[in-house]
Amino acid sequence: MLKIAIIGFGNVGRALAQAVHASQELELVQIYNRSAIAPENYPNITTNDLSALKPADLYLISVSDRSVAEVAGALPFENRLVAHTAGSLPPQVAGTRNRNGVFYPLQTFSKNRPIDFSTVPICIEAPLDRDLKTLEICARALSNQVHFIGTDARKMLHLSAVFACNFTNHLYAIADDLCKQHGLAFSLLEPLILETALKVRQIPAASAQTGPAIRGDKKVMDAHLELLANDTHKQIYTLLSGAIQEHGKKL
Amino acid sequence: MLKIAIIGFGNVGRALAQAVHASQELELVQIYNRSAIAPENYPNITTNDLSALKPADLYLISVSDRSVAEVAGALPFENRLVAHTAGSLPPQVAGTRNRNGVFYPLQTFSKNRPIDFSTVPICIEAPLDRDLKTLEICARALSNQVHFIGTDARKMLHLSAVFACNFTNHLYAIADDLCKQHGLAFSLLEPLILETALKVRQIPAASAQTGPAIRGDKKVMDAHLELLANDTHKQIYTLLSGAIQEHGKKL
Repeated sequence: MLKIAIIGFGNVGRALAQAVHASQELELVQIYNRSAIAPENYPNITTNDLSALKPADLYLISVSDRSVAEVAGALPFENRLVAHTAGSLPPQVAGTRNRNGVFYPLQTFSKNRPIDFSTVPICIEAPLDRDLKTLEICARALSNQVHFIGTDARKMLHLSAVFACNFTNHLYAIADDLCKQHGLAFSLLEPLILETALKVRQIPAASAQTGPAIRGDKKVMDAHLELLANDTHKQIYTLLSGAIQEHGKKL
Repeated sequence: MLKIAIIGFGNVGRALAQAVHASQELELVQIYNRSAIAPENYPNITTNDLSALKPADLYLISVSDRSVAEVAGALPFENRLVAHTAGSLPPQVAGTRNRNGVFYPLQTFSKNRPIDFSTVPICIEAPLDRDLKTLEICARALSNQVHFIGTDARKMLHLSAVFACNFTNHLYAIADDLCKQHGLAFSLLEPLILETALKVRQIPAASAQTGPAIRGDKKVMDAHLELLANDTHKQIYTLLSGAIQEHGKKL
């Protein structure tokens, strides 16, 4: 049974810990949490002292991108397998004192929002075959979607995810603000948001485009711009409507 | 049993026709389709001649926003109930020769993508109480979500929907393009897209925000801008990342 240690207890670390803990094929031997407070579900296996880390087959570093190198450099051992969970970084960022890899779960994680890890695509990479095999065993224990993806392709996937998730979520936040300002319940938009997300499984997004911009309905677009009070919202409306029309011409 | 005629057979008209046809409580008496071709499922009730429209309790006009007034003006009868399906228009756009109303299904409709109408919020409005009652009977026959929403609030809802659906879909289209350019399957993003859409049912979008912009990770954002070859994509990246950071400061 693979012994897994998780270093970092942010949104990704917390979700990974839960999934590893729940797996029959993996043993969660330790969690490193910078704050002195042990997460409530794992009182006996939590430490805030990197030098106290126990032996494990795989150390998963899930800290912010900018801290991966520092945390990896502070590990008090050598020649063990250390993989980070960052979409944008190569395996080598973890240094050469240990063997390294990438274990990137392509999902958005928030506190208090449990994730079914079996559906999460996990993108793995490692310079050494035996390490890649270890990452694969761990990934397959957690998910039905395991992908071998190199650094360059993974960077593009991460960038695509920023558009498909982070930017999309901000558009939801704007819609939420607009609804609130006018006493409308954001929940009115839920069926629309879900259908938009599901439709692209069947129809390419470019062909699924609806709304005033793709119809070239200038009257509606002008009226919408008048309704928007926030300058940033106006800019987003104008830029995205133009982009939809430009993209539509290519179809 | 209410007799319904549907005028216009675009994406909305087609979906409405299917839902009305399937309802046990409504009778679909006619479809007006501008093109001479009768939709295959409704050969005997389709016309392309407005002057041939049969009597109905409710005429639903689902044509493009800019054509509603023209089509309504060409109707060869008076004092019947005529409601359009446009989010942005007042009931009165259909003129005064007939009684008017709005029957706005808040959803995105595409050809070859069946919609479960029972989950679609239908926003209704009519100047006369008896007409509002007729719209309500029709709406409740189709959906479990019927809302009485006036023109001003509906315009804001429609604008919110442009952000939450139309713009979101374009971000999916960009993600799709980026994936394709690098030989990655867009389907890799499906679990992420779905989770992003579902998460806002539980957590306000502003609190659910993840990614490099909200973390202030300039290094990752600079690297992403370098990866983008298309100027419009770069502009969208910069504008939305800035908006996420600006919005985050207010929380």
